[in-house]
Amino acid sequence: MKASIISVGTELLMGEITNTNTVYLSQKLNDHGIDVLYHHTVGDNPRRLTRVLRESLQDCDLIITTGGLGPTQDDMTKEVVCEVLEDHLVMNEGWLDYLHERYEKRGRKMTDNNRKQALLPSRSILLFNEVGSAPGFVLRDTEEKKTICCLPGPPREMKWLYENKLSSLLAGQQAGVLCHRMLRTFGIGESSLETELLDLIDAQTDPTIATYAKEGECALRIASKRETAEEAEAAVEDMIRQVRERIGEFIYSCDDVELVQVVADLLIRRGRTVSAAESCTGGMFGAAMTDVPGISAVFDCSLVTYSNEAKMRELGVRAETLEQFGAVSEETAREMAEGVRRVSGSDIGVSVTGIAGPDGGTDEKPVGTVWYALAAEGTTVTRKTVWNTGNRRSNRNYAVLNMLDLIRRHLEG
Amino acid sequence: MKASIISVGTELLMGEITNTNTVYLSQKLNDHGIDVLYHHTVGDNPRRLTRVLRESLQDCDLIITTGGLGPTQDDMTKEVVCEVLEDHLVMNEGWLDYLHERYEKRGRKMTDNNRKQALLPSRSILLFNEVGSAPGFVLRDTEEKKTICCLPGPPREMKWLYENKLSSLLAGQQAGVLCHRMLRTFGIGESSLETELLDLIDAQTDPTIATYAKEGECALRIASKRETAEEAEAAVEDMIRQVRERIGEFIYSCDDVELVQVVADLLIRRGRTVSAAESCTGGMFGAAMTDVPGISAVFDCSLVTYSNEAKMRELGVRAETLEQFGAVSEETAREMAEGVRRVSGSDIGVSVTGIAGPDGGTDEKPVGTVWYALAAEGTTVTRKTVWNTGNRRSNRNYAVLNMLDLIRRHLEG
Repeated sequence: MKASIISVGTELLMGEITNTNTVYLSQKLNDHGIDVLYHHTVGDNPRRLTRVLRESLQDCDLIITTGGLGPTQDDMTKEVVCEVLEDHLVMNEGWLDYLHERYEKRGRKMTDNNRKQALLPSRSILLFNEVGSAPGFVLRDTEEKKTICCLPGPPREMKWLYENKLSSLLAGQQAGVLCHRMLRTFGIGESSLETELLDLIDAQTDPTIATYAKEGECALRIASKRETAEEAEAAVEDMIRQVRERIGEFIYSCDDVELVQVVADLLIRRGRTVSAAESCTGGMFGAAMTDVPGISAVFDCSLVTYSNEAKMRELGVRAETLEQFGAVSEETAREMAEGVRRVSGSDIGVSVTGIAGPDGGTDEKPVGTVWYALAAEGTTVTRKTVWNTGNRRSNRNYAVLNMLDLIRRHLEG
Repeated sequence: MKASIISVGTELLMGEITNTNTVYLSQKLNDHGIDVLYHHTVGDNPRRLTRVLRESLQDCDLIITTGGLGPTQDDMTKEVVCEVLEDHLVMNEGWLDYLHERYEKRGRKMTDNNRKQALLPSRSILLFNEVGSAPGFVLRDTEEKKTICCLPGPPREMKWLYENKLSSLLAGQQAGVLCHRMLRTFGIGESSLETELLDLIDAQTDPTIATYAKEGECALRIASKRETAEEAEAAVEDMIRQVRERIGEFIYSCDDVELVQVVADLLIRRGRTVSAAESCTGGMFGAAMTDVPGISAVFDCSLVTYSNEAKMRELGVRAETLEQFGAVSEETAREMAEGVRRVSGSDIGVSVTGIAGPDGGTDEKPVGTVWYALAAEGTTVTRKTVWNTGNRRSNRNYAVLNMLDLIRRHLEG
């Protein structure tokens, strides 16, 4: 099966946003064994959208469009798709009712132009969008040889519809079964990872291994395509075993689960409570932990003590410690972790204090210097990292991952 | 002048890398007043590249390609461009010498396939690449009406060549200067925004107005293309004035500045200190504030009190309040804001408590229900929102924007 991905939106042509939808869809379609031949982007212009649609239909069986399904006058994907596949728009009363309800629930009035979102091609299959007001849909040509799937432009809605509605529709349509697993690692760089696994990666037979550098961490994709799902899964499992033998301590998930989720699961399963004392991360650790539904069973508080006064007042860090060693020091990190454990009564107290940049570094403590501590019954461990990507947000994100890694290693012994 | 950007590379179609070249070039071309009509991506496939080139030449005067200029067999951009514009490749002896030198300097031997990089269309103008081994070039058709510029794929080389070689070539070629401004709003939906500005948007003369829904907020792009920069700027300014008259209270920036930066600037300029008490946002408010360099002058702490115990212990919220009204209530939000203001001694205390979902809602307090309070000298204001996107992270992000909006409105009176 051959596919084309068409993005609709003048903001893309203006360079105002990066087209992440296309990357996402390309990965997913390739995983399904569907060859992607083209990406096209056009503005909110019916003539040009018509042209790229007709072009794509010459080579491709499947076209996925994103964008242009909204309520405004600019939005014209549905009209153009109808014209190209010889259909017409009809009001979908079910969706109209749903829209009315949706607006009512939020205490907002539905404006007239919103009705437009309930117009759909008469032969189309509606893809129910639970996270937005424009539905997706699938429309086939009259000979049932070509398929056009239209998804909304906002990445969150597009992904939700792909994962929950479109993926299963596409799964039945090609030969060979692909099985893949994404291993996640922390604490080992991409080049070290490649060096450790060089012979396995170089072989590039089935299963294949590919490394992906993510922000502050590394992922490893192991994939196999065989006649049956069982064979493909067994081949992938065997390769995971070999990889584990070499770099096991760095692997925190074999199922593409985020580190924060792994740590939350460990805490919940073992019934251990945690609180945090944050400085340079400013609340990012707490935000990450509380992104996990159900975390309230084990997470008590995070005290974001940005000023020295707050560190003393909220955590009992001693003035002498701050004066003698500075806010970014092993001693301060230790007192922060022990302090938050004491005030919260949590089993584990974890802390972070560092220089996120872009300024504030010295020769002795350059930008990127971060101290961490983890306090638990009878023990406090500390860690230091010096890691400056040149970007404040990335540096802070890396610090959060280190806090999580400290907890994971503590809980897994 | 109308342009098309064509990216060549199978890795893009596989979704292995995000296409950042296209964003970059789109911004640059638009800044030059060149309309970008299409983005196309094709793999290393001569037939398909030929097809999109011919397609683009129908509408566009200018085509920029990236990728496919390297030494391997896959690389075939030059061959295809020659065929389409009726030219042939010749060896550029100057570049060949340069390549020899380049390899020698690095102590590497130049392999035979590297010679391919010195082959260029006979009529082309070479764009000297100081940061890589493949040069760029510009080729015009025999009637000198159409221009194709070919740049290497690696973003660093592509940008270098654009900035140092291509930009000045393009600068002379078009009439008119584009000026644009991005207005940012909060608290008004995209469809309401359009309704308020319908006549201005519908006119679609110069200046043009376009709306963009962002996560939880809306942006408005106003653009004008005139003979001189002064005229274009004046036209945009005048339109901003008209828009302000209608929806002024919702506009927090006319220069595409994030709300958190606007609030941080206001706090710093007025020397007002702030602390926060967070529940459902889990630290996202603190994380957002501390993403702004220099915020330490006005930001003391954020107490992320996730449990009821922490709310009582850290903020002095009364047990009776929690019992009688619940953690998600106006009363609790009020005591949280007043509590953090008291313990921190900050000028402003701001709080948030809500149900982020996906579970935990009731009929009376559905998922998405959030209460906010802002306490300052002699006054406490509260706000309630009910906004459920179906996504915990988006709901929480919307809550942070509301906290920032409360502070902005307080400071701006």
